[in-house]
Amino acid sequence: MSERLKVVLAEDRYLGPDPAQKKIALQLYKLVADAPLICPHGHVDPRMFADPDYDLGTPAQLFIIPDHYIFRMLYSQGIPMEKMGVPRRDGGPVETDHRKIWQTFAEHFYLFRGTPTGVWLIQELHDVFGVTDKLTGESAQDIYDQITDCLQKPEFRPRALFERFNVEVLTTTDAATDPLEHHRTIRESDWSGLVLPTFRPDAVLNLDTPNWRDHIEALSAVSGISVTNYQTFIQALENRRAYFKEMGATATDHAALTPYTAELSPGEADAIFQRALKGQATAEDAGRFTGHMLMESARMSLEDGLVMQLHPGSYRNHNRTVFERFGPDMGGDIPIQTEYTRNLAPLLNKYGNDSRLTLILFTLDETTYSRELAPLAGHYPALKLGPPWWFYDSLNGLAHFFDQVMETTGLYNTAGFNDDTRAFPSIPARHDLWRRAASNWVASLAVRGLVDMADAEAMIHDLAYRLARRAYRFEV
Amino acid sequence: MSERLKVVLAEDRYLGPDPAQKKIALQLYKLVADAPLICPHGHVDPRMFADPDYDLGTPAQLFIIPDHYIFRMLYSQGIPMEKMGVPRRDGGPVETDHRKIWQTFAEHFYLFRGTPTGVWLIQELHDVFGVTDKLTGESAQDIYDQITDCLQKPEFRPRALFERFNVEVLTTTDAATDPLEHHRTIRESDWSGLVLPTFRPDAVLNLDTPNWRDHIEALSAVSGISVTNYQTFIQALENRRAYFKEMGATATDHAALTPYTAELSPGEADAIFQRALKGQATAEDAGRFTGHMLMESARMSLEDGLVMQLHPGSYRNHNRTVFERFGPDMGGDIPIQTEYTRNLAPLLNKYGNDSRLTLILFTLDETTYSRELAPLAGHYPALKLGPPWWFYDSLNGLAHFFDQVMETTGLYNTAGFNDDTRAFPSIPARHDLWRRAASNWVASLAVRGLVDMADAEAMIHDLAYRLARRAYRFEV
Amino acid sequence: MSERLKVVLAEDRYLGPDPAQKKIALQLYKLVADAPLICPHGHVDPRMFADPDYDLGTPAQLFIIPDHYIFRMLYSQGIPMEKMGVPRRDGGPVETDHRKIWQTFAEHFYLFRGTPTGVWLIQELHDVFGVTDKLTGESAQDIYDQITDCLQKPEFRPRALFERFNVEVLTTTDAATDPLEHHRTIRESDWSGLVLPTFRPDAVLNLDTPNWRDHIEALSAVSGISVTNYQTFIQALENRRAYFKEMGATATDHAALTPYTAELSPGEADAIFQRALKGQATAEDAGRFTGHMLMESARMSLEDGLVMQLHPGSYRNHNRTVFERFGPDMGGDIPIQTEYTRNLAPLLNKYGNDSRLTLILFTLDETTYSRELAPLAGHYPALKLGPPWWFYDSLNGLAHFFDQVMETTGLYNTAGFNDDTRAFPSIPARHDLWRRAASNWVASLAVRGLVDMADAEAMIHDLAYRLARRAYRFEV
Repeated sequence: MSERLKVVLAEDRYLGPDPAQKKIALQLYKLVADAPLICPHGHVDPRMFADPDYDLGTPAQLFIIPDHYIFRMLYSQGIPMEKMGVPRRDGGPVETDHRKIWQTFAEHFYLFRGTPTGVWLIQELHDVFGVTDKLTGESAQDIYDQITDCLQKPEFRPRALFERFNVEVLTTTDAATDPLEHHRTIRESDWSGLVLPTFRPDAVLNLDTPNWRDHIEALSAVSGISVTNYQTFIQALENRRAYFKEMGATATDHAALTPYTAELSPGEADAIFQRALKGQATAEDAGRFTGHMLMESARMSLEDGLVMQLHPGSYRNHNRTVFERFGPDMGGDIPIQTEYTRNLAPLLNKYGNDSRLTLILFTLDETTYSRELAPLAGHYPALKLGPPWWFYDSLNGLAHFFDQVMETTGLYNTAGFNDDTRAFPSIPARHDLWRRAASNWVASLAVRGLVDMADAEAMIHDLAYRLARRAYRFEV
Repeated sequence: MSERLKVVLAEDRYLGPDPAQKKIALQLYKLVADAPLICPHGHVDPRMFADPDYDLGTPAQLFIIPDHYIFRMLYSQGIPMEKMGVPRRDGGPVETDHRKIWQTFAEHFYLFRGTPTGVWLIQELHDVFGVTDKLTGESAQDIYDQITDCLQKPEFRPRALFERFNVEVLTTTDAATDPLEHHRTIRESDWSGLVLPTFRPDAVLNLDTPNWRDHIEALSAVSGISVTNYQTFIQALENRRAYFKEMGATATDHAALTPYTAELSPGEADAIFQRALKGQATAEDAGRFTGHMLMESARMSLEDGLVMQLHPGSYRNHNRTVFERFGPDMGGDIPIQTEYTRNLAPLLNKYGNDSRLTLILFTLDETTYSRELAPLAGHYPALKLGPPWWFYDSLNGLAHFFDQVMETTGLYNTAGFNDDTRAFPSIPARHDLWRRAASNWVASLAVRGLVDMADAEAMIHDLAYRLARRAYRFEV
Repeated sequence: MSERLKVVLAEDRYLGPDPAQKKIALQLYKLVADAPLICPHGHVDPRMFADPDYDLGTPAQLFIIPDHYIFRMLYSQGIPMEKMGVPRRDGGPVETDHRKIWQTFAEHFYLFRGTPTGVWLIQELHDVFGVTDKLTGESAQDIYDQITDCLQKPEFRPRALFERFNVEVLTTTDAATDPLEHHRTIRESDWSGLVLPTFRPDAVLNLDTPNWRDHIEALSAVSGISVTNYQTFIQALENRRAYFKEMGATATDHAALTPYTAELSPGEADAIFQRALKGQATAEDAGRFTGHMLMESARMSLEDGLVMQLHPGSYRNHNRTVFERFGPDMGGDIPIQTEYTRNLAPLLNKYGNDSRLTLILFTLDETTYSRELAPLAGHYPALKLGPPWWFYDSLNGLAHFFDQVMETTGLYNTAGFNDDTRAFPSIPARHDLWRRAASNWVASLAVRGLVDMADAEAMIHDLAYRLARRAYRFEV
């Protein structure tokens, strides 16, 4: 048997190679390498923290089956998602032998060479589970055993990991109709970890949501306000926002195909709402209503102080076959070109000059960084830019953001980092990548004399910790 | 009291850190560091040079109040423009204590970390005014005093600075209706500085200009041609162009929302013009008329030899509140996506093959560099590309230009640098940044063996001086 | 007479300057510097290889007259194409003295400083023809003599160069109606070089092709199937594809203004086809028919196994004057913005999940790399991304591709390199540039610890040789 290849995580990894720049980058990185993690925008299941004995499952359950970042890459090379154990909507047969799933994954792990998913995973296996062998078909089963051993130990319960990871605050993303029972359980427990909800009302704001009327019924039920028209709809939303705030939420989150905004008269809004209740809303109705509700959401945020997040530009379920067989969020969502300058003009003209509002924008269209987002956020008091998202919170994606945004918008109109992940154990690796990328960027300014070292040190503390904490109003 | 932080401007600042590349870059930079400044596209007030005793005012008047690059950043962080002393249209109260304005600015100067505005300002304070303390709330008043002292001295009159800066030629931007009296005063004075006008007819070419008919009346008055129809309109424009040429102009300058061009028949053009005179032109009329007048302007340039400049893509007065309270050019203009290939086809097909015409294109949409502008300018004899503009004449913006334009368009289809600024004392810092960025780019080619040193030296002389001089026809 | 400047091709040319990175890059480059060339997508004339004594002509005929990369740059600076010897459609006079043409070119060779064309040419002159003097007006005639001498020798016949260049396989691009007689001659000769055809049916699929009906008649003639309706059209295409396969083709190639796809019913398709036969098809008909035929082509590829290539986004013959005087492909084609996510949804939904299909996408719009192409190819099993094309297979263009594509799509969803050239003797220089750029990219990952050296070595072999061989199905 051949000597196995080992994983080596160099101290200076991900940093640019120039020695003078790297020296500064490492110096900056060390200032923040161990700073607490602020996780203001993520998708971890709150159940993990409600149940002190929550079991993270097998390595396949933890790393592969729920993670479309992973299985979409194997799928792109012709490996059926069934073979990855991804459950089918129709209950049809999928691989259930988790060792086999892991083996298939390991044999194809070379597909992730040079990808952020590969980099995160190597670091996560190494730092969280102590895996030092390189993941290949040969080492697969031993590594499976090693992870399985870990996961049986109490120090691998989510609450223990939360503390080990030094998470200061972690927010989840929750439907407007979610009763937040797990959050309540966490609050009422003796555990001190800060896990907060985020108000995500897409399913009730976007009239084209499948089964929209069921969501409206659920909204009526959970709010105790019978939603029969536009007025009661707004009341129910305000009711839920108040409840989310009470449960610790500091922010809302909105997805939309485009960032189109335009205000309807109350009469128009109600007419569309009534058509929707009767199942008669058109695609145009849905588009106009979403555009209006983004403005209404900004108004509510101005009133209740919840930070508003907006991330448009994903063409959901592009691959209908995958959607029909496996459901949504299965790797078949594809970005589209996005226009902010004209689309956001109505909202920004009405609310953007009020610095009591914080609207954090995200994009899947990097071409908007220097052309639209940086100039907008460098002018409107209400606007901040969120970090790169989804395909773009990679080493190059972060470099594009620093390169194309910062000169115009200014560091202090950005919102720091968030990990945006379902994969809880990957959180430290993601923040570490950001901190290294940020150190690298600030060092590239310092080595060229664009900022002095005093500024550089302030900037890295802002990037790693302070900006996110401030933008999401965790500072009190 | 703590030791104050000092500003250090390293000799190798802004250059890439690799020692081999930097050595070449410095060698190239030194060849052109002291070359005369060619300033063929700017917005300095000609009054400054007409009056030999022109006073540049207080530090707040010089650096803050008229400069939307500065106050938009503070505004984006919630600081009212009134507090920066920006005059309101309604004459409402604004801060008049210039020391207080300066103090607020200094306390927020950290917002400019890593921005081009910050970098220019530091260098301008250091090189022009001898300021070696870092600008902070603590040092603010001492620096205010130091600048004030300078500004009282005769060597800080604009004419003296013009000579100290080694400006070979500086052009202003002037409405078609401007009588150019300051330019006449300069010409008739015994001062030898070359300050030339540029013909900017937007206010009469774009029918949607506020109070367009007043501008037409002014055009009639200044040209002595009663503008009552399309034909006399063209005559009056040609008359003014001739006057501008007589006064030394070598170029015209055109803004438009998009670079749409299409020719109207004389009958159509006159019909639209007549509707406009009656206040009945539609938005579509205005768009078609501008598209037509860009073609007419190209025709006139072909005939009279004035270089034509076009910079589309700015959504003006995006922020209506700021516009209504403070007027235009207050930091609320935002770029939009721009399309050149199809839009310019009519103009280029009619005039683009004639190398007697020079049309210099600018963009606010960096995505057009490699896709549209570089291929177009690398083919049509009449076309040249202007340097990055507005948000993009920054260190990264310049790097994007070199990276995305030069391989396809070729250096000799570009037009060198211009500073495009209202802020006269910032001119040397802007040219210095360009010269360093250009040296850095050429050195990056030389160090990788893409050009030899003989070519590299020729290229840096072209970039720093010769290309602009040639493109704008200052060579005679 | 002054000492002439010499060309020096440094061993480490085109590599990034950082010593640690460059050391790795050189190590990787050396692994593949001499690997055989896979040329799966090009435009070399097969006649060159059918005739064992084929003469490459004068230096002007070889380098200048047929190469729009060259003469468009001189044209952009006002030098008439007639002076470059480019033949006019009307047979009007053009320069016929090839020494004069060469002299004009050499005197303007400085225009190519820092361009890929310049870099390829210098290397081609040096490596293929042994030219060590720098090309200038002064050295022009001596270099002309030197090349002429070479071209008279047997080792400069195309077959000999093919072997010297170590070409493993070279494909040409051939109309659907091409009888492939030169390919047949090559196959039937005793020469072992592998020169294969590629099926390029644009002229019959795109109804707006000039003289489309003549092409249909030619299709009838060559296939022996009388094309009188949509059904016989499909039959004739399938017949030709079978013939191309028989002659060794492994791929088809499709151009379109946009990647629009949508299926027509057989009745609709036939109705449009009938209108086209009568010369009555509208522009809309043509667009819909092309969109439909792209889907039909995917179906055929699924059935017959020919790899399908699609490269949309060129606005052909933008410069009508040049087109009318000199014909197509004369440097006047300009890229336009291109949208893939929505346009390809119909095709990908129908065929994209089938990994038996290989669809290789190209683009002239770099903004689609990270936003659309990488996410699409990182998901759909049928999709691979081709390398940068036309204006973009330059050092920066390749860097953009590596930077913006690889993290999301993954190396193994790309198709390696192709040279896409008419200029046969430039092929080694183009592959060498790619191999250096690829080594540089992989080294940038290795030096930052993103991949280990074992992975880096596998990746460079894939990039230089294996990916193209696999994607185009030359592996059997």
